[in-house]
Amino acid sequence: MPEVSRKNLPRHSIGFDFGTESVRVVLADVRTGSFAAHAVETYARGVIDRALPTGGQALPPDYALQHPQDWLDSAARACRAVMSESRVAPQDLVGIGVAFTSCTMLPCLGDGTPLCLLDRFKDVPLAWPKLWKHHGAKAETDRINQIARERNEPWLARYGGTIGLEWFFPKVLETLRHAPDVYDAAEIWIEAGDWLVWQLTSGPFPNCARDRLVRSTCQAGYKAMWNAKDGYPSRDYLAAVDPKLANVVEVKLPGSHRSPGREAGILTDRAAALLGLRSRIPVSTAIIDAHAGVPGAGVAAPSTMVMVIGTSACHMMNSRIEATAPGIAGVVEDGILPGYFGYETGQASVGDALAWCARTLGLSHDELTGRAESLPPGSGGIIATDWLNGCRSPVMDGRLSGALVGLTLGTRPEQIYRAVMEATAFGLRRICDTLRDAGVPVRRFVASGGLPKRAPLLMQIYADVLDARIKLAPTDQSVALGAAILGCLAAGEPATGHASMSQAIHAMAPQRQDVMYRPDLRARKAYDRLYEVYRSLVADPGQLTGLMRRLREPG
Amino acid sequence: MPEVSRKNLPRHSIGFDFGTESVRVVLADVRTGSFAAHAVETYARGVIDRALPTGGQALPPDYALQHPQDWLDSAARACRAVMSESRVAPQDLVGIGVAFTSCTMLPCLGDGTPLCLLDRFKDVPLAWPKLWKHHGAKAETDRINQIARERNEPWLARYGGTIGLEWFFPKVLETLRHAPDVYDAAEIWIEAGDWLVWQLTSGPFPNCARDRLVRSTCQAGYKAMWNAKDGYPSRDYLAAVDPKLANVVEVKLPGSHRSPGREAGILTDRAAALLGLRSRIPVSTAIIDAHAGVPGAGVAAPSTMVMVIGTSACHMMNSRIEATAPGIAGVVEDGILPGYFGYETGQASVGDALAWCARTLGLSHDELTGRAESLPPGSGGIIATDWLNGCRSPVMDGRLSGALVGLTLGTRPEQIYRAVMEATAFGLRRICDTLRDAGVPVRRFVASGGLPKRAPLLMQIYADVLDARIKLAPTDQSVALGAAILGCLAAGEPATGHASMSQAIHAMAPQRQDVMYRPDLRARKAYDRLYEVYRSLVADPGQLTGLMRRLREPG
Repeated sequence: MPEVSRKNLPRHSIGFDFGTESVRVVLADVRTGSFAAHAVETYARGVIDRALPTGGQALPPDYALQHPQDWLDSAARACRAVMSESRVAPQDLVGIGVAFTSCTMLPCLGDGTPLCLLDRFKDVPLAWPKLWKHHGAKAETDRINQIARERNEPWLARYGGTIGLEWFFPKVLETLRHAPDVYDAAEIWIEAGDWLVWQLTSGPFPNCARDRLVRSTCQAGYKAMWNAKDGYPSRDYLAAVDPKLANVVEVKLPGSHRSPGREAGILTDRAAALLGLRSRIPVSTAIIDAHAGVPGAGVAAPSTMVMVIGTSACHMMNSRIEATAPGIAGVVEDGILPGYFGYETGQASVGDALAWCARTLGLSHDELTGRAESLPPGSGGIIATDWLNGCRSPVMDGRLSGALVGLTLGTRPEQIYRAVMEATAFGLRRICDTLRDAGVPVRRFVASGGLPKRAPLLMQIYADVLDARIKLAPTDQSVALGAAILGCLAAGEPATGHASMSQAIHAMAPQRQDVMYRPDLRARKAYDRLYEVYRSLVADPGQLTGLMRRLREPG
Repeated sequence: MPEVSRKNLPRHSIGFDFGTESVRVVLADVRTGSFAAHAVETYARGVIDRALPTGGQALPPDYALQHPQDWLDSAARACRAVMSESRVAPQDLVGIGVAFTSCTMLPCLGDGTPLCLLDRFKDVPLAWPKLWKHHGAKAETDRINQIARERNEPWLARYGGTIGLEWFFPKVLETLRHAPDVYDAAEIWIEAGDWLVWQLTSGPFPNCARDRLVRSTCQAGYKAMWNAKDGYPSRDYLAAVDPKLANVVEVKLPGSHRSPGREAGILTDRAAALLGLRSRIPVSTAIIDAHAGVPGAGVAAPSTMVMVIGTSACHMMNSRIEATAPGIAGVVEDGILPGYFGYETGQASVGDALAWCARTLGLSHDELTGRAESLPPGSGGIIATDWLNGCRSPVMDGRLSGALVGLTLGTRPEQIYRAVMEATAFGLRRICDTLRDAGVPVRRFVASGGLPKRAPLLMQIYADVLDARIKLAPTDQSVALGAAILGCLAAGEPATGHASMSQAIHAMAPQRQDVMYRPDLRARKAYDRLYEVYRSLVADPGQLTGLMRRLREPG
C-alpha cells in the first residue's frame, strides 16, 4: 500500500497512565482523540504499605512501595486487551506515550534490573520502588531544605522555596542513610516513568543499555531540582548534605534529558513482544501523570490553567515567562510541553475535603449539594481554610490545617459544606494571584479530573470566585489521552498529519462546548469581598497560621 | 400551742422560679432543704414572639414579650398545687422568695396595672412586658454605650465596659423612641421580679401602693446600672442619651432598694387569697433567677464560683473585694447575697454549642460522649472557640463566632465534640484568669444547672482545665431552692432557727458528697499547654477576632 493513501486511514496512538493502584491504557484516534478502546489493569501487589510480599517484613507506617514487575505485567495485559478489543491493526499504531505517578522512583543495576528483584535485596524495604506517597524521608527532607537555604541555592526559588517530602533526592538520601548497602549497590537511581520508557526502548531488563537511558525534563525538573541550564544540584551542595552524596549525579544518574512529546526511542522487539505490539513504534519521553493532563485537556496555549481536581488538585499552566513565586511546586522549562515554562501548583485537598465534610456531617454529597445550591455566597457568614491536608501552594506547609470560622448555633451542615467549597475556590484564586504577582499571567481555566463533571456547584463557585469562564476537559481520562497525544507528537508529522503541537492537541482533545461556567456578576462582587476576608484568614505569618503550627508541635 | 414547741416542727419556705416558659414552685424544709412538694405551671401565652394575643398584630423577629397575668395565674396554680400535694399547714410556711428572669421588665401605672392591660395600649407591642431575650433595642444599646464611653461614665467599668442589649435602659429607650405614647403613659418602669414581689406585698394591682415598691439590688445592679453609692446613671448622662430620658429616674423609677434575702414586705390578704396561702408571710426582695442559684447551690462563702451550666452558662461568685474587670456582666454590692460584692460572668453557649455539634454531626450526645471519653486532651489537635452564640465574658461581643482550627482529613466527629467541650472549659478558665488578674480570688467551684449531672466528661474536663475540684449542687432546682432559701432568710432567725445566712444556706443546700471531680495530673499538664494555644486563638484584638467581626458586617 503506497504511503500517501494510508494518510486517510485511521491511525492510533497509545497512552499509558500508570496510576497508584493500576495502569490505564487508551488507544486514541490521532485525528479526533476518540478512544478505539481503553482498559484498566490493577497491579497484582497494589500499594505495598504493610509488609513486603517476599519475606513478609512489616513496614513502618510512612512506607509506600511498589513492585516493578507489576507495572510491566499490568501494562502488557491492558495493552493486549485494547488491541484485541479495538481490532486496530498493529501497523496503524503510530506512537506511544507514558504518564506515570511521580516521584515514584527506584534503584536499579546498569542493565535496568531493579535491586529489589535481586536475592540479596529482596527483603530490604528501601531497595524497593518508593511510591510517590512514601513518606519515610521526613528528616532527610528537612536536611535537604536546611542546607539549600543556608547555601542560598539558586534552584530553591524555582520550587517556591521548599523541596517536598515526596521528591527524588529526599528518597535517595533516605536510602543512603538507612540502607547504605542498597545505596552503594544502586548503579542507577531512576524515576519509574523513565524506567518504564527505558524498558520499552532499550529493554526490558536485563537488556537495557545505560547509554540509551532518556530521562524526562518533567520528572527531573519538578522532582529532582534539575534544569536545562544548570543540571542537577551541584556537587558542593550535595556534599554538604552528605559527603557520600557528592558524586551521585555523575555516578548514579546517567542519561540524557528530553521533553515529553519528544521521542525517547523506538519500541524494542522484546518490549513489542511483551505488549503484543509491533516493534519500532516511537515512544515519547515520559511525563508525570498530572502534567499529561494539560495536553489531555486540550490546552496547547500559554496562560491557560489546567485544574486537575480530584481528591486533591494540581493546577498546571504553560507560560512564555519564567518567574519564581512563593510556594509553587515548580517551574520547569519544557516541563509540560516543549517550548514553554511549565508551572505546577497544587491544593492538597479538594474532593478529600468535601468527602470529609460529608462523612463528618453524616449526609450525602447529593443532599449537601442540593441544600448548598440555594445558599448565597458566603455560606451564612462562615469562612474556611482549604487546608485539611495541609497547604501546598502557596505556603507549602503540611502543618497548616483546616479551620472553620463564623460558626453560630444556627449554622447548618450545608453551610459548612459550601464554605469548604468556597475555601478551595479562594485557595485557587490566591494561587493565581501569587503567579500574577510574580508577573505570570493567568487568563483562562480548563477543569479536568474526576470532580468537575460531578460538581457543577463547585465549578460555578470557581467561575464566580475567579471571575472567569471555566471550560471542561473533553474526557475524564485526560492523563491517558495526554499520554496518547505525546505519543502522537513523538511520532511526528509524517505519521500523524499534524503540522504542529497545538494542531495535534486541539484535534485530539477538543474542549467540551456544551458545558461552560460563566461568572455571575452579583456573586462575583460578593466573593470579591469574601476573598479579602479569606486573605486575612490565611495571611502568613499570622495568628492563625502560627497557631496551626503550634497545634502540630509534639505535646 | 406555745411558740417554743413549734421550733421542732417542720417549717417550710416557698421558692418561686419564674422562668421563660413557666414558673416552678418548691416548698422546702427550712432545716434540710428537702422539697415537700414542687410544681411547674407553664404560662398560658408562653413567649409572645410572633403576634400579640389581643389583636393579633404581627411582631418583628427580634421581639419577645410576655403577658403579666400569666405570671400571676401560673404562680397561683403552682402554689395551690404544692400546698395541696404537700399537706403542709399554711401556718408552717415561714417565708417566700421570688427569682425571676431578667431583664424582663414592663411599664405600668402607679397602682401596678401593666399598661398592656389597658384598652388604650393592648394592641401596642412595646406596652407589653419585654422578656429578657427581647432583642429590639440594638440601636438604643449602641447609643447607650457610645454616650457612656464618650462621657467616660464611672459605672461602665462595673459592667466590663459594655451595656447589654437585653438590659433595662436599652428597653426603656426603645419604647421612648418607637412608642413615645407608651413611654409617656408609663408611671413606673419596673423589673418583672420586682413587680411580682410588689404584687405579693402591696397588691395585686390595681391596689399596689407606689411607696411600698421595693426593688432588688440584684436586678437594679446587674441590669440597670444602679449601685448603692451613686444610684442610677446621672441625669446629665441620661439627657445626653435622649433629652426626654433626663428625668426618668425621678419620675418613673420610684421605690427603695434592698438586697435579696431581706424582707420586701409581707403577703397581703389579697395576694394570700390568690395563692391559697395565709397572709402576712415575709416575702424576700426579688433576685435574678440565675443568681438565686448561688445560695441554691449551697454556696455562702466568697471566692466560690457557682457555674450554672445549661444551654448557656452563668458563672457567679461572691467576694469581699470590689474590682472591675473586662467583660464581666457586672459586679454589684449586695447583688447576690447581702454583705458581698456579687460578680456575674457568662458564656453565651455551652449546652447549646454541644447540641449544635450533635445536630450538625448527626450523632447523639451519648454516641459522641462515648467516643470522646477515650480521646486524650486536645481532641487530636483541634482547638475551638466557645463563641457559637457570641462571647459574653470577657469580651462582650455578639459578633464573635465559633471557630474550629486544626481540622484534618482524619478528624472525627467526636474530636470536634470534645474540642467544643474543651473550648467551654478554656473559656471559663479565661474568665477566672480575668477575675484573678483584677485581684479577685477564685478558689472553689460548684456546678449547677441542667448539664453537669448529665455530662460527667464535661465536668472532668473542667476539673482538669481549671486544676480544681468540682462539686455538684444538691439539686437541679438550684434557682427555686435558692429562692426558698432567700424566703427563709427574709423570715429571720426567730421563724427559722438559722442564726446566720451561711447556716441557713448550708442547712438547706448541702452539697453532694457522692460526686466530685478531681483534676488528673497528666491531663492538667496537657491542658496547661493547650490553654496557651487557646489564649492565642482568642486574643483580642487579634486576626481572628477582627475577622469574625468582618464576617458579621452587612455584605
